[in-house]
Amino acid sequence: MIDFKAPLREIRFVRNELLDFPGLWARLPGCEEATPDMTDAILEELGKFCENELAPLNQIGDRQGCSLEGTEVKTPEGFKEAYQLFVESGWPALATSPEYGGQGLPHSLGILMNEMLGTANWSWSMYPLLSHGAKVSLETHGSEELKAVYLTKLCEGTWTGTMCLTEPHCGTDLGLLRTKAEPQADGSYKLTGTKIFISSGDHDMAENIIHLVIARTPDAPEGTKGISLFLVPKFMPNQDGSVGERNPVTCGSLEEKMGIHGNATCVLNFDGATGYLVGELNKGLNHMFTMMNSARLGVAMQGLAHLELGLQGATAYARERLQSRSLSGVKNPAGNADPIVVHPDVRRMLLTVKSLSEGTRMLGHYCAQLLDIQEHAPEESEREEADQLLALMTPIAKGFMTEVGFEGANLAMQVFGGHGYISEWGMEQNVRDARIAMIYEGTNGIQALDLLGRKILKNQGQTLRIFTKKIHKYCEAQTGNDEMKQFIEPLAQLNKEWGDLTMHIGGRAMQNMDELGGASFDYLMYSGYVTLAFFWAQAAEVASRALAEGNADADFYKAKLQTAQFYFRRILPRTLTLAATIKDGVDSLMSIDAELIGSR
Amino acid sequence: MIDFKAPLREIRFVRNELLDFPGLWARLPGCEEATPDMTDAILEELGKFCENELAPLNQIGDRQGCSLEGTEVKTPEGFKEAYQLFVESGWPALATSPEYGGQGLPHSLGILMNEMLGTANWSWSMYPLLSHGAKVSLETHGSEELKAVYLTKLCEGTWTGTMCLTEPHCGTDLGLLRTKAEPQADGSYKLTGTKIFISSGDHDMAENIIHLVIARTPDAPEGTKGISLFLVPKFMPNQDGSVGERNPVTCGSLEEKMGIHGNATCVLNFDGATGYLVGELNKGLNHMFTMMNSARLGVAMQGLAHLELGLQGATAYARERLQSRSLSGVKNPAGNADPIVVHPDVRRMLLTVKSLSEGTRMLGHYCAQLLDIQEHAPEESEREEADQLLALMTPIAKGFMTEVGFEGANLAMQVFGGHGYISEWGMEQNVRDARIAMIYEGTNGIQALDLLGRKILKNQGQTLRIFTKKIHKYCEAQTGNDEMKQFIEPLAQLNKEWGDLTMHIGGRAMQNMDELGGASFDYLMYSGYVTLAFFWAQAAEVASRALAEGNADADFYKAKLQTAQFYFRRILPRTLTLAATIKDGVDSLMSIDAELIGSR
Repeated sequence: MIDFKAPLREIRFVRNELLDFPGLWARLPGCEEATPDMTDAILEELGKFCENELAPLNQIGDRQGCSLEGTEVKTPEGFKEAYQLFVESGWPALATSPEYGGQGLPHSLGILMNEMLGTANWSWSMYPLLSHGAKVSLETHGSEELKAVYLTKLCEGTWTGTMCLTEPHCGTDLGLLRTKAEPQADGSYKLTGTKIFISSGDHDMAENIIHLVIARTPDAPEGTKGISLFLVPKFMPNQDGSVGERNPVTCGSLEEKMGIHGNATCVLNFDGATGYLVGELNKGLNHMFTMMNSARLGVAMQGLAHLELGLQGATAYARERLQSRSLSGVKNPAGNADPIVVHPDVRRMLLTVKSLSEGTRMLGHYCAQLLDIQEHAPEESEREEADQLLALMTPIAKGFMTEVGFEGANLAMQVFGGHGYISEWGMEQNVRDARIAMIYEGTNGIQALDLLGRKILKNQGQTLRIFTKKIHKYCEAQTGNDEMKQFIEPLAQLNKEWGDLTMHIGGRAMQNMDELGGASFDYLMYSGYVTLAFFWAQAAEVASRALAEGNADADFYKAKLQTAQFYFRRILPRTLTLAATIKDGVDSLMSIDAELIGSR
Repeated sequence: MIDFKAPLREIRFVRNELLDFPGLWARLPGCEEATPDMTDAILEELGKFCENELAPLNQIGDRQGCSLEGTEVKTPEGFKEAYQLFVESGWPALATSPEYGGQGLPHSLGILMNEMLGTANWSWSMYPLLSHGAKVSLETHGSEELKAVYLTKLCEGTWTGTMCLTEPHCGTDLGLLRTKAEPQADGSYKLTGTKIFISSGDHDMAENIIHLVIARTPDAPEGTKGISLFLVPKFMPNQDGSVGERNPVTCGSLEEKMGIHGNATCVLNFDGATGYLVGELNKGLNHMFTMMNSARLGVAMQGLAHLELGLQGATAYARERLQSRSLSGVKNPAGNADPIVVHPDVRRMLLTVKSLSEGTRMLGHYCAQLLDIQEHAPEESEREEADQLLALMTPIAKGFMTEVGFEGANLAMQVFGGHGYISEWGMEQNVRDARIAMIYEGTNGIQALDLLGRKILKNQGQTLRIFTKKIHKYCEAQTGNDEMKQFIEPLAQLNKEWGDLTMHIGGRAMQNMDELGGASFDYLMYSGYVTLAFFWAQAAEVASRALAEGNADADFYKAKLQTAQFYFRRILPRTLTLAATIKDGVDSLMSIDAELIGSR
């Protein structure tokens, strides 16, 4: 099993040196309490909790999985105790509003927690992660009465939340949903229907579970315009905040899945369960997106989690496993073979994982930073810009980070050879766990359509230009810096090509909307690689400066610079293929008859 | 679960129309019996066996797995009965020598069987597949005595075989192996040691199991020059061919694996087990490669198997699942949504799987054809050329086909969205089963070194030139064929670039051998894409001709032509990235210190 270590130095590099969170928080009203000392202490303490409590449960969770006993779900050994400790230590309340008992620290710390908990034990981390979406949604759209009863409990973590969207016949296309919500005389509703794939849908870790459910009222319009959002508690709350009678929402079965066995993925049956409207009638889809965007960023971090865990496992193994001699001469004369880390192809795999792990961390925490700016910046224009950038970055982060997360988990497993395919080292679990991230919270195909259609072409590329201008300015500012030329030249060129490709697709889509769908996935990946190049260039700049200043931690910065070089030289050329397939258009996809695609 | 159908039409296209097996067999001495009628009948019968007997056991095998009861391994429900039927029907004897009770049909039919059995149920197919390696090895290197006792049983299939190479501390680097073989007065040996990851290592499906084991005699030289090959039966055979006393080679435990649960992957303990030398003392590694090359082609076909199974599942689902409307207007007005096959991004996934499935089938059966020529061609020069081409194609087939096999299994799963991640449809099993193929019989990193180092640079690219000349001639012959221009121009260009890249790496490797290791994996993938382009161009030519001749099966040929176009336009541009990373060289891989690769 992997001896997980919280990557504190890496996180500090990204948050303090690359993205300057301390400087940002110092100027944002409401973030003053998040001093460098305090966030450092949080990082240390959370690191210990992840290393000592969560990581040891990761493999146990995979092996035991969850079980359904009657209608109650039992989580794996130790999950409940770890959750109680998590709640007692006050972690759920960290980045939530003081009005509801929270500590009121910036939201970006939620993403930090997301990364750390998730890397140690993704399945476990999904229980608190799903609560976050419910909290945000209630805080934004819930009535004062609902907030009073539910928000404090959710913020404390004594109750957890879920998101109930999918039904057997509708996943992507929520307009087809059938769950019914019938209004009652007391203003409440009775919900009836079946929801599937509900993560953390039932469990024994918390006193109560608060389901946020989309459903239709009897006279609702068809399609997405007739969807409303409801809050349905597992147990009805009493006046004193204790839990009362059981609401008829029960787990019908647990899904047998490829991975994330420690998380209970439930079929939930609503049999006239009591629910309360959240927000406006028939505006459920909009309200749901509040949860969804938060959840998408959470899932983006899952990509990073599996990259980091894979990197830790594979690096340790590659340094210890002795096998064959280096092609360029014996490197370990004392042993009967060299450690496999000397072989260039093993390094190709390790450095791919490393550059993607560190690169996606930069992107993930950049999104976290946008959350803080969007919420706290004093000027509306700054808030508005952060909001737009976050809208742009969310599908890139979710889609790109989870695609390369799965790739990285696989490469890390490959470094182990046959030992990677057996369960002992946890590397194959890391692959199975990583795989779901490309699917849930909107498949990556849907992220790609969201990015290219809604976020970019819908406003003629305006939002994209906010970001590409930042890259452009950055490149201009580096003119004359010879050491940075190796990064700035390709970055500037790709930044221009990004715009050109966007125009190209936009032009074609005006003739045939299928052109959008034919280019979208490759466009999303292209956008991800260019975005990471922007952050890797900045990381190289920070590292070069530290080295020039004679920083004592020279090894760390040297490695950062070399990893940036690897990214630019061996990973970034993937844009060549993507640009070519994007430009080729949709003809080769659409000409074949649907009936002729199958095998004969 | 997927309703598997043997893809007979596709196989006939490749074997009869593209590769002209009937014409080949008619002119090869010893292959005359393999008439088109006979092979057609074999195809039909085998198809029924695969559809009716094996495919229904695929999911059962995954769920039940194998179990160890005492020291005996129990295979999943139905595996034994299916195997008995397989043996009774005479399938194992199909392509083996009449001298040992075989039917003496061409070896390439073994690859055909490999594909069909493996697509229906890969885990099950590994039991007979491993026997094949043992048979070939015995036939080539075994003494007459050993052949007399063991070969007929292996050919009938009443006994099965294994390959015992890996030990806990040595996989790739077999020079490190420790299993001891001590000579006995009667000319036999006593073997002592532990072998791990032994596929089909123990089971209840056959009367006896014949292990081919590499080990060291007490005075053997160190490293790979002191390895000998031994035959170790599970039960000692009696004079009459029945099985006698148990030999002390026992299954210590079964590995817990990511997939291929239906196959028993054993830790085998040899506790002074009786064995017999196969071939020459200390030539075990060479002899082993006879098995290994056969096994590598077998594993190459595994890539195809998972592509084909994924294609069948995903295409059926994409035509039935209604979700969202087409971007270019409603396509299914009678339903409340369109089938997802109308969405361009779903087609991108399906056509990627289709073009790789059909393309790897062409490559796999081309290798099978080389086997027949190598064995039966009347002229030594033709046999010699086939031998060289097979040596070149084996690592490409094993490495490339299993890489894209895993990619395709994942894409097929992605088409199902959340339904792909649960076990119901078998798509996540297909991914887990596919993953091992990139590792066993030599990891793909090792295939890449074998290709670039041993097969290409070691003889200054001579072998490669035999193949690139064939491509060159083919392209020249198509000059003036306007319809083929879309394929021939890029193919000719890539064919030239393939040679240039080889020279480029060769030149660099003369300065620094690590350059070979730094380029090898990307070079293997590059070689695979160009090789498939050669076959896809030929397939397009066959299809165009059939269409021009007004063939009644026009739909089939139209789809073939369109899939070739898709391959050239959307898949082949992957060579752009690969050529760029190959040319970039090894610096960015080697400059970083091993200690600095990990996370901090």
